[in-house]
Amino acid sequence: MLDAPRELLRAMFAAAIETALPAKVVPARLPQPPRGRTIVVGAGKAAAAMARAVEDNWNRPLEGLVVTRYGHGAQCRKIEIVEAAHPVPDLRGQQAAERILHMVQDLSEDDLVISLISGGGSALLSLPAAGLTLADKQAVNRALLACGAPIGEMNCVRKHLSAIKGGRLAAAAFPARVVTLIISDVPGDDPSSVASGPTVPDSTTFAEARSILRRYGVTEPLSVIKHLERAADETPKPGDPRLARAEAVVIATPWTSLQAAAEVARNAGVAPLLLGDAIEGEARELGRAMAGFAHSAALRGHPVRAPGVLISGGETTVTIRGDGRGGRNVEFLLSLAIALDGLPDVWAIAGDTDGVDGAEEIAGAIVAPDTLARAAALGVDPRERLARNDAHGFFGALGDQVVTGPTLTNVNDFRAILVAR
Amino acid sequence: MLDAPRELLRAMFAAAIETALPAKVVPARLPQPPRGRTIVVGAGKAAAAMARAVEDNWNRPLEGLVVTRYGHGAQCRKIEIVEAAHPVPDLRGQQAAERILHMVQDLSEDDLVISLISGGGSALLSLPAAGLTLADKQAVNRALLACGAPIGEMNCVRKHLSAIKGGRLAAAAFPARVVTLIISDVPGDDPSSVASGPTVPDSTTFAEARSILRRYGVTEPLSVIKHLERAADETPKPGDPRLARAEAVVIATPWTSLQAAAEVARNAGVAPLLLGDAIEGEARELGRAMAGFAHSAALRGHPVRAPGVLISGGETTVTIRGDGRGGRNVEFLLSLAIALDGLPDVWAIAGDTDGVDGAEEIAGAIVAPDTLARAAALGVDPRERLARNDAHGFFGALGDQVVTGPTLTNVNDFRAILVAR
Repeated sequence: MLDAPRELLRAMFAAAIETALPAKVVPARLPQPPRGRTIVVGAGKAAAAMARAVEDNWNRPLEGLVVTRYGHGAQCRKIEIVEAAHPVPDLRGQQAAERILHMVQDLSEDDLVISLISGGGSALLSLPAAGLTLADKQAVNRALLACGAPIGEMNCVRKHLSAIKGGRLAAAAFPARVVTLIISDVPGDDPSSVASGPTVPDSTTFAEARSILRRYGVTEPLSVIKHLERAADETPKPGDPRLARAEAVVIATPWTSLQAAAEVARNAGVAPLLLGDAIEGEARELGRAMAGFAHSAALRGHPVRAPGVLISGGETTVTIRGDGRGGRNVEFLLSLAIALDGLPDVWAIAGDTDGVDGAEEIAGAIVAPDTLARAAALGVDPRERLARNDAHGFFGALGDQVVTGPTLTNVNDFRAILVAR
Repeated sequence: MLDAPRELLRAMFAAAIETALPAKVVPARLPQPPRGRTIVVGAGKAAAAMARAVEDNWNRPLEGLVVTRYGHGAQCRKIEIVEAAHPVPDLRGQQAAERILHMVQDLSEDDLVISLISGGGSALLSLPAAGLTLADKQAVNRALLACGAPIGEMNCVRKHLSAIKGGRLAAAAFPARVVTLIISDVPGDDPSSVASGPTVPDSTTFAEARSILRRYGVTEPLSVIKHLERAADETPKPGDPRLARAEAVVIATPWTSLQAAAEVARNAGVAPLLLGDAIEGEARELGRAMAGFAHSAALRGHPVRAPGVLISGGETTVTIRGDGRGGRNVEFLLSLAIALDGLPDVWAIAGDTDGVDGAEEIAGAIVAPDTLARAAALGVDPRERLARNDAHGFFGALGDQVVTGPTLTNVNDFRAILVAR
């Protein structure tokens, strides 16, 4: 297998995705059917595929609506699939959120709501609080994305600008039982963080949301600032009686995907070192640090002896500097390639497990020992590309993109650096 | 020992320093005495202590001059010690460099020059090329430091603005034999990189120096730009006959120091994981990434099982944003503490092995699980301190600084993150 390092890395990435596919993880975790009605709702990049997995394994009447990203739909017979915009919400997502909220109202305690939540749901299930517009929320989202705010902070703000997030959906469904199945894409796999936890108690506050905007210097739209200052209608906190019949189960996580990839490496005779599933930070800086680890592994046999592979997950951030076509994973890889500077026998893959790294329909890319040399031969300047966030352009020119199409799941980023010998 | 995590981390840091002390590493690597004269020259934070170790182990006449940083002097009987400014060169360093260059001229092939080189020597042994002033070089140094240029790039520029660096000192000493003993503080331990390699062939060029200044947008002083464009008197390249009698021996490295610290951990029943001796990148971003590894170690048992410790070396960079008192190591630690967010049972130390982290006479600091809580109790805001590069102020307020005084050696930064259980 080590004669084919690219193939090993691709197989590891494929295993990370496959182990998190809804058809694999949903069926075993479905609840007992209720006496009353079954309503399926949900949001996220995996929502359609999760809905399909419910339909295929539910022998009772059901109805429902889930919202997923454009292009991430799947064929369903009973559950309606709406496609909407991500990462910046659009009107279709808002209309779907309104309908979902309406659908779970007036249920009885004999009814069951199955809520299917996955990453991306926060943007997809976007319903502005009273007095706010979608444009207000979009503006704040864009501002926070552009300054590289971590996902936890973005979600705190979103929950306090929303009519459905931060437990409000489950509160609306009360007294029905609410079972939430979650495919996690967040550090720590905290149910309240995935898709801003529409069915889960929220312990963050208006005050925290205000301080996050202050920290990043976001001072508009004014309607948003005023809404946060007014601080009316706080999200349901842990212990809220309206959430007493709501339970949440995490059915797939970044960690289980990293482990699946590690197993593929092990079977190929390559020692895996799992660095963590919640690695954050500026993508290009993580690339430089990881290049140091790879250097050390190649030259010193630490932190892993060759053949070995450094595996990590989590969500890095990109501070936008230029006008290029980039994504977190390819920006990480381009910075890594520059810092590796052609180090022999070191290969790497990084990609978003949802199949979309940044705004492009490209999952990620591969770095090889000859990446810089081939770029030079083509007249493609890696530093100039990195300076203007054009990593997709860089790897596109080299033909080293990894394209999976939408995977219909999402356990965040996957990175592996192979030190072949 | 794990009842005392602070003490373990301090003992590891102490071992990293002690294993690189000149009195330990110089004597065994001294050359055979020559038929002629012995001249000792040198520069760096360890230069005075290295000179002392030569004197104490050399039973022949010798004379010489070494230049070290203010406060890093040591008592010598025959070798003159000059103290000068670091990291921005001053006139005393320039005068010492002139005298050293003069001292090695007109030697015969029976004479021996022992050159004692350690980190910091690049700034200390500063002799502007003809047509340039010290102020010119200072201006470029400051500009490159402020934009966080890596040390390798700074040295390339320095070599091409200097009358003594990049092999020029050895060329001046020809036909005498030149034996250089090096305590390395640079990634890869390349002799041409430590103190800008005054006795070692230089493979970098004027063209590279020009492109580095362009990349960071450094466009003045004009005399420097013109000097680099003129590109007269290139440094001696590998194979230059004037360097045929020059040899260089690396006698201590960051890696041997990391290994010594790892041994202390192992003896305390704590599993060390060596991540690498050449980790670069923005200090605060490395802190965030390492927090992810520590989280994973604490929660998942990977990349190391508790009790375990993540050890790394190398030189991070700090992009100056504010007016605070900071250094690479404490900025790393402050960012780490914020990202750890009070994670139980995780402790960390980071420090510069020369005893000076940044411009302060403080080696580094310690992070404990209660670091943020104690800061909050004191009204010290970690994010605000980090935003203005005031990590020394932060850890000073907490009483968690690590003060060693000048250690008289320098194997770059030392970082250890202990996951106690």
